[in-house]
Amino acid sequence: MTKRVFNFNPGPSTLPLNVLKKLQKDLLSFENTGMSIMEISHRSPEYDKVHNEAINLTKEIMGLDDTYKVLFVGGGASTQFAYIPMNFLSGPKVGAYVDTGTWSTKAIKEASILGENVHIAASSKDDGFTYIPTDLNYPRDAAYLHITTNNTIKGTQFHRLPATGDVPLIADMSSDILSHQIDFSQFSMIYAGAQKNLGPAGVTMIVLKENMLDKITEGLPTMIDYRTHVTKNSLFNTAPTLPIYIVKLVLEWIKEQGGLAAVEATNRAKKDVVYSMLDANSDYFTTPVKKDSRSWMNVVFRLPSEELEQKLVAEAKSAGFIGLKGHRSVGGIRVSLYNAMTLEGAKKVTDFIMNFRKNN
Amino acid sequence: MTKRVFNFNPGPSTLPLNVLKKLQKDLLSFENTGMSIMEISHRSPEYDKVHNEAINLTKEIMGLDDTYKVLFVGGGASTQFAYIPMNFLSGPKVGAYVDTGTWSTKAIKEASILGENVHIAASSKDDGFTYIPTDLNYPRDAAYLHITTNNTIKGTQFHRLPATGDVPLIADMSSDILSHQIDFSQFSMIYAGAQKNLGPAGVTMIVLKENMLDKITEGLPTMIDYRTHVTKNSLFNTAPTLPIYIVKLVLEWIKEQGGLAAVEATNRAKKDVVYSMLDANSDYFTTPVKKDSRSWMNVVFRLPSEELEQKLVAEAKSAGFIGLKGHRSVGGIRVSLYNAMTLEGAKKVTDFIMNFRKNN
Repeated sequence: MTKRVFNFNPGPSTLPLNVLKKLQKDLLSFENTGMSIMEISHRSPEYDKVHNEAINLTKEIMGLDDTYKVLFVGGGASTQFAYIPMNFLSGPKVGAYVDTGTWSTKAIKEASILGENVHIAASSKDDGFTYIPTDLNYPRDAAYLHITTNNTIKGTQFHRLPATGDVPLIADMSSDILSHQIDFSQFSMIYAGAQKNLGPAGVTMIVLKENMLDKITEGLPTMIDYRTHVTKNSLFNTAPTLPIYIVKLVLEWIKEQGGLAAVEATNRAKKDVVYSMLDANSDYFTTPVKKDSRSWMNVVFRLPSEELEQKLVAEAKSAGFIGLKGHRSVGGIRVSLYNAMTLEGAKKVTDFIMNFRKNN
Repeated sequence: MTKRVFNFNPGPSTLPLNVLKKLQKDLLSFENTGMSIMEISHRSPEYDKVHNEAINLTKEIMGLDDTYKVLFVGGGASTQFAYIPMNFLSGPKVGAYVDTGTWSTKAIKEASILGENVHIAASSKDDGFTYIPTDLNYPRDAAYLHITTNNTIKGTQFHRLPATGDVPLIADMSSDILSHQIDFSQFSMIYAGAQKNLGPAGVTMIVLKENMLDKITEGLPTMIDYRTHVTKNSLFNTAPTLPIYIVKLVLEWIKEQGGLAAVEATNRAKKDVVYSMLDANSDYFTTPVKKDSRSWMNVVFRLPSEELEQKLVAEAKSAGFIGLKGHRSVGGIRVSLYNAMTLEGAKKVTDFIMNFRKNN
C-alpha cells in the first residue's frame, strides 16, 4: 500500500486511520452478517444498533440529556441554510445572523431568498472578516440568533459564545464540532456537515432542542419539516447508512481517547505549534486574523509573495503534506487541523514550513 | 471472513462483490494518493475525475446525449417528491400523477402539501395497486406526468411507458433504474435513490433534460433550485463523494458486462426462474399482481398462511437467504432481484422455496 500522506485538506479531510482500518476490515461482512454495512436494511436490528449508538454517543460526548434530539440527514449544511428559516422563520419575528464571512453570508442569503425578516446582529465585513464580532444587536424577540462557530475560509472561530437569553442560539458547527469542550446546552440547534470532524461527506448531523419543535411552521414538505426526522428517528426514508456508520466509528474514536477533554488538549497543542512558529517569524509570515479570533481548526497566513506561496504548496505536496493552499477567494496558505490530524502531523508540517522559510 | 449470504433486501440491497472488493482494496489510499477516496477534496483533480466519470458513464449506459444533465444530490428520492413540484409546479398548470401505491402516493402527498394543482391521471388503488394502469387522463398542458416505474412494495412495474407527447414525463426510477433497456430520451426527468441498483444509500441520481431548466420557478432556495446543481456540476457544496465513488464503480461493473443488454438478459432470466416456479405451483403460492404488471425487481407472493410465511422467512435466513419478508404494509414474501443479485442466487432461493413447499 502507498504510504499515507499528511492531509491538511479543509474538507473532506483526514480521518482517523483506525476508523478507516476498521471499516476496511469489515467491508464485505459487517459483524458476521455476510453483508456489507451498506447492504444491510436500514430497518434491520443490526443497522438500528449502529444508528442508535451514533445518536447516543453524540449526546454522551456533548453531555446533552434527552431534551435534545440528534438527527442524521442528507444534503449538507448548505441545505440547512434554507431549511432553518423555512422551519423557524415565518411571521413577524426576525432571524438574526452574525455575519463572519462566506458560510454565514450564504446562510443569510438563503433566509433572504425566502423573503423572511433577516436582521444582521453584527458583521466583521468592514475588516475583511478577520475577527469575530462581540458587540451584537438584535431584537429580544428574534426567532433565533445564527452563528457560524468556525470559519474555514477566513480562519476565525468563536471562543466566547454570545449569551442570547431567551433567543434560541443556532450554530453551523460544520468545521469545529466536537473539537473542544463547550456547554452544548447553550444551543437550541447545532448542525454540521460530517466531512471535517465527524466522518465522510454525505451526512449532516443536527442536534435540536425539543422545545424548538413547537415553533415549526405548519405546512412544510415532509422532508423539510424537522419534526419528521425527530418522530421517525431519522428513518422516515432510507438514511445515508454508510456515512452514519463511519460517523459512529469516529464518535467511538473520540470516546476511546477520553472524550472532548482529550480532543481539546491535542487540538490546543496542534494549533499552538503552528501559531507559535508563525508569531516567532512575523517578519516573514502575515497572519491576518486578530489573535483572539484565531481558529484552532484552520490556520491561515500569507507569505511575502504569491510566488512563494505557490512554491510552498508545491514543495509541501512533494514532501507529503497535502491541501495547504488557501481558499481561492482569499489566497495564501491554510493549515487545517481537524480532530483526525495528529500532533505529529502538525509538528512535521510546522518544521517543513520553517525550513521553507529558511531556504526562501 | 464470514461467508457472504444471498441478500434479497429491498434496499439498501446487495452490491456487486467486485465493487466491494475494489473499494476495500483502495480504502486507505485511493490511486496512490496516500488518502482514502473519502478524505480527498471534492475540488481535487482526483475526485473530479471520479465525479465526471460517474456522470459520463450514466449518459453512456443510458444512451443519452449532452441535452441531458446528470446530477448527484443528497436527501433521497423522498426529498425530490417535494422539490419536483417546487421547481416545476407553480401557477395554473397541473402536475399529473399516476398513483401506483406507496411511493407514488407519497409523491402526490408532497405536491398537495405545497398547495399545488395535483391531478391524478390514473390509479390502481381500487384493486389494491396490483396492476399498472394504462388508461391515463390528464390535461394536454400539464406541467408534467409523474410515474413510479417500479413499485417495491406492491411488486408492480411499468413495462410500457406512457406516450406523453409534449407533456414532460418524470419518473421515480429508484428501484429499477439501469435494470433493462429502455429509451431514456422519453423522459424529461429521472430520479433514483442509489440504494437499490446504483450503490449505497446517501446519494440520489437525477437525470434532467436541459429544456426543463427554463421551466423552473424563480425564487427558490439555492439547494432546492435544480439549476444550481446543473450550473455547478453537483459541486455547489460538498457532494457525497464516497457514495458517488461507489456509484461509479457500479456503473463500470454494468459497462464491463456489456451494458443494459447484458443486465437485462440476466434480470430476465432471474425473474423467469422465480415466477415460473410460482406459476407452476399456483395451488400453493398466490401472486397478487396481474401478469402484465409484474415487477422484475421485486417478486411478491403469499403462502397459504401467515404462519407458513414466517416459517419460510426464518428457515431461509438460517439457510443464508436474507431479506425475504414482504413489506409490513402488505405482508407475504418478497424476493428482490436487483441488478447485483446473481442468477445463481435467484436459482438457489427458488430451489429453497420449492423445497419448503414440498416439506410444508
